[in-house]
Amino acid sequence: MHPRQDGDSPVRVGVIGGGQLARMMIPAAVNLGIELHVLAENSGDSAALAATTIGDYREREDVLRFAEGVDVVTFDHEHVPTEILRELVERGVRVHPSPDALVYAQDKLLMRERLSELGVPVPEWARIETAEQLDLFLQANGGRAVVKTARGGYDGKGVRVVSSSTDIADWLAVGDPLLAEELVDFRRELAQLVARRPSGEIVNWPVVESIQRDGVCAEVIAPAPRSAGKLADVACEIATTVAEELGVTGVLAVELFETMDERLLVNELAMRPHNTGHWSIDGSTTSQFEQHLRAVLDLPLGATGTRDQWSVMVNILGGPAEGSLADRYPAALGDQPTVKVHNYGKEPRPGRKVGHVTAGGDDLDEVAYQARAAAAYFQDDNLG
Amino acid sequence: MHPRQDGDSPVRVGVIGGGQLARMMIPAAVNLGIELHVLAENSGDSAALAATTIGDYREREDVLRFAEGVDVVTFDHEHVPTEILRELVERGVRVHPSPDALVYAQDKLLMRERLSELGVPVPEWARIETAEQLDLFLQANGGRAVVKTARGGYDGKGVRVVSSSTDIADWLAVGDPLLAEELVDFRRELAQLVARRPSGEIVNWPVVESIQRDGVCAEVIAPAPRSAGKLADVACEIATTVAEELGVTGVLAVELFETMDERLLVNELAMRPHNTGHWSIDGSTTSQFEQHLRAVLDLPLGATGTRDQWSVMVNILGGPAEGSLADRYPAALGDQPTVKVHNYGKEPRPGRKVGHVTAGGDDLDEVAYQARAAAAYFQDDNLG
Repeated sequence: MHPRQDGDSPVRVGVIGGGQLARMMIPAAVNLGIELHVLAENSGDSAALAATTIGDYREREDVLRFAEGVDVVTFDHEHVPTEILRELVERGVRVHPSPDALVYAQDKLLMRERLSELGVPVPEWARIETAEQLDLFLQANGGRAVVKTARGGYDGKGVRVVSSSTDIADWLAVGDPLLAEELVDFRRELAQLVARRPSGEIVNWPVVESIQRDGVCAEVIAPAPRSAGKLADVACEIATTVAEELGVTGVLAVELFETMDERLLVNELAMRPHNTGHWSIDGSTTSQFEQHLRAVLDLPLGATGTRDQWSVMVNILGGPAEGSLADRYPAALGDQPTVKVHNYGKEPRPGRKVGHVTAGGDDLDEVAYQARAAAAYFQDDNLG
Repeated sequence: MHPRQDGDSPVRVGVIGGGQLARMMIPAAVNLGIELHVLAENSGDSAALAATTIGDYREREDVLRFAEGVDVVTFDHEHVPTEILRELVERGVRVHPSPDALVYAQDKLLMRERLSELGVPVPEWARIETAEQLDLFLQANGGRAVVKTARGGYDGKGVRVVSSSTDIADWLAVGDPLLAEELVDFRRELAQLVARRPSGEIVNWPVVESIQRDGVCAEVIAPAPRSAGKLADVACEIATTVAEELGVTGVLAVELFETMDERLLVNELAMRPHNTGHWSIDGSTTSQFEQHLRAVLDLPLGATGTRDQWSVMVNILGGPAEGSLADRYPAALGDQPTVKVHNYGKEPRPGRKVGHVTAGGDDLDEVAYQARAAAAYFQDDNLG
């Protein structure tokens, strides 16, 4: 149990999930004097420095008990069952984002249906329950498609590029409805983050470019190069519409495709701080983590101006083949004194996000070089 | 006991003292994956979120036991008895700053003697053990002087302006030697912060102006207005000399008087993060707290460039007459969305430092207005 702090007001935020997103809320919580409570699966989880309860987010009792000790419940991930969240709300617990909003981040089919209703631009898509339905979709879309499980996917998991229904025979056998989407011919991937309070105030950061490798975010450039003007306006308008129409509270990340013909299509939604917003810790007046805490507490939102003309965030994927990230500090920090290093305290493992680095400055080439150079010290090829 | 974190390297920093300086090391420690352990006097102390041991820094056993669980020992305050620190060093514990350096921040008489030997500019001063010695000093210095206890003073405590030895009759009766100093005719007070690694690397932030009220730091402007050029160079040279000659490791704060005839005289030394460096959390690429951790771990130091042309830090003194700082967030954060608020989690009490706010930007008048406006929401006149 976390000791009640001398003079603290009763402002206790409960985060379900103990990964790096919960961990990165700790500095913002310390600064603002907010008590952060985390429901983690294991005592060694990334956010273990916060007041930690060990429990299972899929277990009704664990979640209800955790919620009793906090003033508002929010999330490090989208995987809490909707029925548990609805029970929290019925019991009077403040849950942000609400289960009614969160369901659109949990279920990709519901998300596609709702965004289509709202007229928000999305790729061509179809609900798939049979091989025949997929065959029809493939015929109408050039013979290839992306198929996703409606629930449970992340970082490229639960996503396949297919050219035949045999490619997803195992998924079809399960019987859960699937989402088929056109293979979008995109120029690049962007992300628009906004934050919204329950009482309605909404703010946005600049739209960013997200560079993916093997289905995982590798780098983010903020703002997205050549985005000033119409592109930025449209991205902001899309994310604002989604946040308001879906009633999202806290941070909303809208992942976007910029097509070859310069349209923006919504790819994915996340209703929590997001990898494409990590640059804001060092690069914005208000980080996405501070903003998320302010938003879920219905406090006035902070300014989202950039501290540097360009910020580049590079993920540390995998980590060192031997030892820990900190073993590389003498070399990395010595070589790149301006770069900020974020270490998630996780065991290195192939492809795992174990940290990130951020650089900022006026010259994008130089900034990107610094961030990549620093990140390279922390990852070995066989784990990258 | 703090759970060992998954994948963490054995980098454990022990901080003696659980006040706001230890607390503000937490965000930097979380970012870098450093385990922060705090020896606090009470469980409700400001830094209680870190792994906290309750103990007395004046008790040999408490300090020795605390030191066993960490890789390096450093400080939130200067009050640990020198003999305990020397025993730690004899036992092979890494202590930064070392007791040989720290003694000059603990004992103002030793500091004056040493700085005078080094030729560092200081006010006229004398060692006082008798009323006659003070009378002589008063005669030589216009009939008034500042008298300080050699040890134990802070924030205006242990300091008196006197015109007669009867003003310090109680201190003379104790028998400990005192320090008498001329009443410097100063234009303003400045502070120069530097950080130094055991292996010698040293970096400096810009010299800042510190505005005191009732002997307590009220505001800091970074960099000090009209300091570019010679003033900044001399301030940096003085602090660098002090850090190198005294063998200081970690952050060193040198408080300076700028005299009416444009000389700089050393007022006080602190060998730890310092109130005049709080602006660096939001205003510098590397905050004094991150830098202190890097320095005491002998890691390469971070860049100390400014993020804004001007930063203004205003202390929250006393706090609200009723309730807590967080009760004022709706008004303060709503009115000043660019200002960063730091809440130390301390009970409001007259004159007590319970938090600070920092604003940054290109226009000093505007920045100072924002910071003062935000701070005003958090303090009521009767506690200010």
